[in-house]
Amino acid sequence: MARLLVKDCIIIPITGEVISEGVIAIEDDQLFYVGPARGLPPEWVADEVIEARDRVALPGLINAHTHAAMTLLRNFADDLPLKTWLEEKIWPQEAKLERQDIYWGTQLALLEMLRSGTTTFADMYFHMEAVAEAVIASGMRACLARGLIGYQDRLGLRLRSAEAFARQWQGAGEGRVTTMLGPHAPYTCPPEYLKKVMAAAERVGVGLHIHLAETRGEVEEMRRQYGRTPVELMESLGLFELPAVAAHCVHLTPLEIEILARRGVGVAHCPESNLKLGSGIAPVSEMLSKGVKVGIGTDSAASNNNLDMLEETRLAALLAKGLCQEPTLIPAARALQMATLNGAAALGLEDKIGSLEAGKKADVVLINLKQPHLYPVYDPQASLVYAARGSDVETVIVNGKVLMYKGEVRTIDEDKVMAEVSRCIEKFS
Amino acid sequence: MARLLVKDCIIIPITGEVISEGVIAIEDDQLFYVGPARGLPPEWVADEVIEARDRVALPGLINAHTHAAMTLLRNFADDLPLKTWLEEKIWPQEAKLERQDIYWGTQLALLEMLRSGTTTFADMYFHMEAVAEAVIASGMRACLARGLIGYQDRLGLRLRSAEAFARQWQGAGEGRVTTMLGPHAPYTCPPEYLKKVMAAAERVGVGLHIHLAETRGEVEEMRRQYGRTPVELMESLGLFELPAVAAHCVHLTPLEIEILARRGVGVAHCPESNLKLGSGIAPVSEMLSKGVKVGIGTDSAASNNNLDMLEETRLAALLAKGLCQEPTLIPAARALQMATLNGAAALGLEDKIGSLEAGKKADVVLINLKQPHLYPVYDPQASLVYAARGSDVETVIVNGKVLMYKGEVRTIDEDKVMAEVSRCIEKFS
Repeated sequence: MARLLVKDCIIIPITGEVISEGVIAIEDDQLFYVGPARGLPPEWVADEVIEARDRVALPGLINAHTHAAMTLLRNFADDLPLKTWLEEKIWPQEAKLERQDIYWGTQLALLEMLRSGTTTFADMYFHMEAVAEAVIASGMRACLARGLIGYQDRLGLRLRSAEAFARQWQGAGEGRVTTMLGPHAPYTCPPEYLKKVMAAAERVGVGLHIHLAETRGEVEEMRRQYGRTPVELMESLGLFELPAVAAHCVHLTPLEIEILARRGVGVAHCPESNLKLGSGIAPVSEMLSKGVKVGIGTDSAASNNNLDMLEETRLAALLAKGLCQEPTLIPAARALQMATLNGAAALGLEDKIGSLEAGKKADVVLINLKQPHLYPVYDPQASLVYAARGSDVETVIVNGKVLMYKGEVRTIDEDKVMAEVSRCIEKFS
Repeated sequence: MARLLVKDCIIIPITGEVISEGVIAIEDDQLFYVGPARGLPPEWVADEVIEARDRVALPGLINAHTHAAMTLLRNFADDLPLKTWLEEKIWPQEAKLERQDIYWGTQLALLEMLRSGTTTFADMYFHMEAVAEAVIASGMRACLARGLIGYQDRLGLRLRSAEAFARQWQGAGEGRVTTMLGPHAPYTCPPEYLKKVMAAAERVGVGLHIHLAETRGEVEEMRRQYGRTPVELMESLGLFELPAVAAHCVHLTPLEIEILARRGVGVAHCPESNLKLGSGIAPVSEMLSKGVKVGIGTDSAASNNNLDMLEETRLAALLAKGLCQEPTLIPAARALQMATLNGAAALGLEDKIGSLEAGKKADVVLINLKQPHLYPVYDPQASLVYAARGSDVETVIVNGKVLMYKGEVRTIDEDKVMAEVSRCIEKFS
């Protein structure tokens, strides 16, 4: 049994009070003890010790919605109307992507996510076997779904391969990989197709990852076509009887918020992408107050344009305050909960990850607070949410393994990834 | 004469097209040449060369509104109603601050600003001699004003000392320090007091730095007291006949925007502080389209809670797009212009700084684009605005002097500053 001890750090367990000085004892892939040093049994002796004075420890951040391989298109096209951006810029390039491109684009995303404290992410894209392989090699955790566009899948071949992927990779990588089915959105997947996807999900025993109510245009289109808003349409199809994570949820009626809460739908709030694409600002405070499980996602690097969850969490907290002109909304502790435990709950993983508690998987991030832009430290939760940035993450542990130590990523070769990405994107020029 | 050459970098001059590979030749404190290497006279030989391949060069960022020494109160109190935050948390601590506290708090801010690419900032606080001394020692550039609260200055003693400060320090530090007078806001400075401040500013020949239209409450209060909105009130007093920089400007009528444009008032847009304090979102697109000189400010680290101008610039661009649901608003190039040239114009320094052009002062920032979260690089302006963070700044030159080189600040002792700050804040606990 491997025993790892993180010593003398401030601990933000998420599910309890901040511990001003404590230790985290890890056995293999699990948290054995989290608390003041005096609570650790004296006979418990570590094989490896990480000294963490002036560091704050928190659960690994959970990116509840992204398309990792789209790092290949980071800063490729910006400041354009959504339709032009998608149809003239993004889709023509995506059509050129092959399996190896997805593999290296995903590696670049994993590198960025690890460096900035994300340990788990929910991904929806294609060539998902390549994504799964990259995730397993990196040591990270991910919830993977092949994106399905009903209008491009008349014969159901993609759905069949998505179902096979979900079945085959569920629990792979010592349980670090979980799977879902990924019907893209109501405007790309007509009701008949969605029903087939739901049936497949039930057969495999997995949930669904879908884009929902992202733009005003989508809501109008759904109303026109089906006489229902996107969330109402999903409800009428029975889609929320399956576990589901809905990305965006920007344009919602009070009735829709009530449906999301009642059905236990996980929402992946993507504030930066929603602003950048001009989609709008999601009613996060209202969702939280009604009990909706709202996690945080970056969306892809093509519309963000980074995968920095600390920045995204800050933006979630700030936007809610500014939009409602109420500074008490989404205080720092609540924002951190969204980025961790709520994300876990949205992905159906709240029993395994999302907080630092004995018995959970050992996904831990250490951040150095003794830096000019984080100093002084009166309130470590406020430091993280309102002042820190991804580059402040120093050490990352996933499933009990140290994947990054003092800024050095151990499982991904940074130079190789950047060189391979350069080669992959030659076809874009 | 000292000759410094920055070689082989991407250059964003702000006033012209991006140069995909070029050099920046500096003579003493000035830019001698900016452009492709072939345009530099062969007889021009550098004393010192900075190799900058994979780096992007841009003008030093200009923070158009802050209270530097308030880094002492970073993360001290957050998520509170504005009145509670100010009256119960911030003001009682500020009342304890002495000259040495302001000096060290400012040093901490300078360290953070330098590290994140800010070369010039506009400051309003008290014990401004301490601020000026810290600025001069650091090598940075600043526009300094002693904050004046009319209701606390019945005898005019503070105004007299502010006037003396403005006169004495104007042009100090080889011209790096400029001064203004700083009437705090219309709700703290009644019209009669503002007139006295205006008269003093005219005597010294300096402009004014004021908070304006920050909250809905302020607008209502001014309407009730004077029958005018804040900008209308200033206009009626003739305040805008002096050069002025107005911080915040969140709640404006179309008529007020027209006044700000016609009078050439500089606006310091502080999006993060405005969100965090629940003040709202300023109509930046409308101001820019009417020709208002809108720069960007962080406000203090007590309400932000960092001084990262890249983050602030990103937020300015994103908020405009999201609020108006129009992704084409404030494209990357325009956002960078706000953070540099517009800030310079707001402070009356556009002839000296804000762009990379021969003849201007040599304030240059180098950012390493070859990092996972900025890779690949299709559009360096989009990289900076939508993906970069303050920690990506590698090298900073101000007035021709290299103040930070590859992450090492040469003019401020980081350990000493943090130790002194720890001592200063003991009185808060």
